Amino acid sequence: MNVGDVTVVGAGSWGTALAIVLADNGYQVRLWAHKEAQINEINNQHTNEKYLPGIILPGNIKGYTSLQESLEGIGRIILAVPTKAIREVMAQIRAVIDKPITIVHVSKGIEPDTFKRVSEVIQEEMPSHLLVDVVVLSGPSHAEEVSRRQPTTVTVACENMESAEKIQDMFINQHLRVYTNPDVVGVEIGGALKNIIALAAGITDGLGYGDNAKAALITRGLAEIARLGVAMGANPLTFAGLTGIGDLIVTCTSVHSRNWRAGNLLGKGQSLNEVLDNMGMVVEGVRTTKAAYQLAQKMNVSMPITNALYDVLFNNKKPKEAVDSLMARGKTHEMEDLASILDRPSK
Amino acid sequence: MNVGDVTVVGAGSWGTALAIVLADNGYQVRLWAHKEAQINEINNQHTNEKYLPGIILPGNIKGYTSLQESLEGIGRIILAVPTKAIREVMAQIRAVIDKPITIVHVSKGIEPDTFKRVSEVIQEEMPSHLLVDVVVLSGPSHAEEVSRRQPTTVTVACENMESAEKIQDMFINQHLRVYTNPDVVGVEIGGALKNIIALAAGITDGLGYGDNAKAALITRGLAEIARLGVAMGANPLTFAGLTGIGDLIVTCTSVHSRNWRAGNLLGKGQSLNEVLDNMGMVVEGVRTTKAAYQLAQKMNVSMPITNALYDVLFNNKKPKEAVDSLMARGKTHEMEDLASILDRPSK
Repeated sequence: MNVGDVTVVGAGSWGTALAIVLADNGYQVRLWAHKEAQINEINNQHTNEKYLPGIILPGNIKGYTSLQESLEGIGRIILAVPTKAIREVMAQIRAVIDKPITIVHVSKGIEPDTFKRVSEVIQEEMPSHLLVDVVVLSGPSHAEEVSRRQPTTVTVACENMESAEKIQDMFINQHLRVYTNPDVVGVEIGGALKNIIALAAGITDGLGYGDNAKAALITRGLAEIARLGVAMGANPLTFAGLTGIGDLIVTCTSVHSRNWRAGNLLGKGQSLNEVLDNMGMVVEGVRTTKAAYQLAQKMNVSMPITNALYDVLFNNKKPKEAVDSLMARGKTHEMEDLASILDRPSK
Repeated sequence: MNVGDVTVVGAGSWGTALAIVLADNGYQVRLWAHKEAQINEINNQHTNEKYLPGIILPGNIKGYTSLQESLEGIGRIILAVPTKAIREVMAQIRAVIDKPITIVHVSKGIEPDTFKRVSEVIQEEMPSHLLVDVVVLSGPSHAEEVSRRQPTTVTVACENMESAEKIQDMFINQHLRVYTNPDVVGVEIGGALKNIIALAAGITDGLGYGDNAKAALITRGLAEIARLGVAMGANPLTFAGLTGIGDLIVTCTSVHSRNWRAGNLLGKGQSLNEVLDNMGMVVEGVRTTKAAYQLAQKMNVSMPITNALYDVLFNNKKPKEAVDSLMARGKTHEMEDLASILDRPSK
């Protein structure tokens, strides 16, 4: 059964895991990547060992190295590339598509300097007559668990709920429960800013602090993420959902999280440069901390954890001093503090 | 320096850890327990090995086996006894106190059949002319971490914020950050009902499911706890705080949690009776699941996870079937579902 053709742009762990979901649901999936060896492996061995070790891909996933071929006649694409590559990939896509498309993006981050969310970047890069809608798919979802058909929930968000529901229909099955949400801003901000708190959680673990400190950090971290999100126009309830607290829990409590591991090394006494050298890859939370710090200043939003982390990353503050100063703030009424999430500061 | 005398009733892990905090803050702490050997150990060795192994108690903690002596001239007591012992202990307390007291309770649970919260039980058992106020202290706090002076946050709740602030002043120090909150209902319901979700989290782990399933369960679990809490009069924001999501995270992600361990054995195929036999102790979440299930029916509140867990515990439903049926519910708009937290059903 082929219920339709769909293209996944990007064959990393998450793009490939989502390709498996779509293949399970009867789609003929075109999976694009630029590396020929990887695409040959996908087409001949039906594996993608580097990104999803031990997983056999369904036969209705076909790899492509030509973006143009992979997009021929296609109306919906899943965009699964690193955040910083999006403008470049979008330029390639708009050069080859032959009809208007819906783009489902699964990237997390805020563009430095412009403070733009991923869906805003996509809209800038795609002429409106070629764009039906941008939908974001996000939530607590390790790719390898999704590829093993373990129970997982995600949210798809689009202001146009009809578009969101079409994407919900594409992905939903007995292993993957898909919720819809019209709040694109809240879903994107939650996904991006969780990496800040994951870095901080790694630091408290690296300092040898326990579960109490980490739970406090996650709880207070969610409050300040929500505060910034609401100031940017998000619905506060979104932060109580899968793309808010759900994704935050997975990222902060998994030792597989790249941001947590970077924080852990910082907590153990390494400098930011040493950490980045040792990890040998991009740590998204470092860039996001800078962007959120600047945004919070600009919008006059209180973000004490982000500020403390900024001082550790960029002003050589000792991690232990930063944590101790968070603990030493004045006595607080929890309700006033939480209620401040709902205040939109004057801009 | 002695800033005042205070009595901690109950020398388990949590009572003893809080006694240490108060002793650090300059109080002369009277720590009551009925076992003479335990009190002798506290007074002679300055340890309480069974409950806080490896911890030396400060010299200004003194153990008592006579409740009357421990309460002589005392205006504030910390009540740290198991939930089901509260009525009995309160009867003993009211028989010996010599002036009106403020009671800070740290117990979590709902009384079966009456559905009463702990502060309601205390108010029933203490004549109002002997009771200044009942304050609840709750939050994400393993006792052993508090006793080791690791960073921890808790909330103290009382409708009378002056009383809450006095208790905040007693406990706050550089290791323990104390927030106040007037929402007693929300703080008590969050603390009690988290044990249901911890049991369910143990089950999904026992079934071999991963982080994605657990994050979904915690997120959706918080939503249904909040729904019931709001129907009972709680402020929804409280569930976004330390005693809501904070405590839930600690309980669901720690393998030391008794409720998580019981759920884990259920997920691995043991029956409820086998689990309770093997653990050899009370699993609070089992009683709480029954109470919450009945309350949700009575108040017409949707609690799908609680209902599924009830079927596993009391109707021999297989854990895997229960989880699969949660995943198979109809397509859902996340925002409608979260917004339903704010609806108070007609009673």
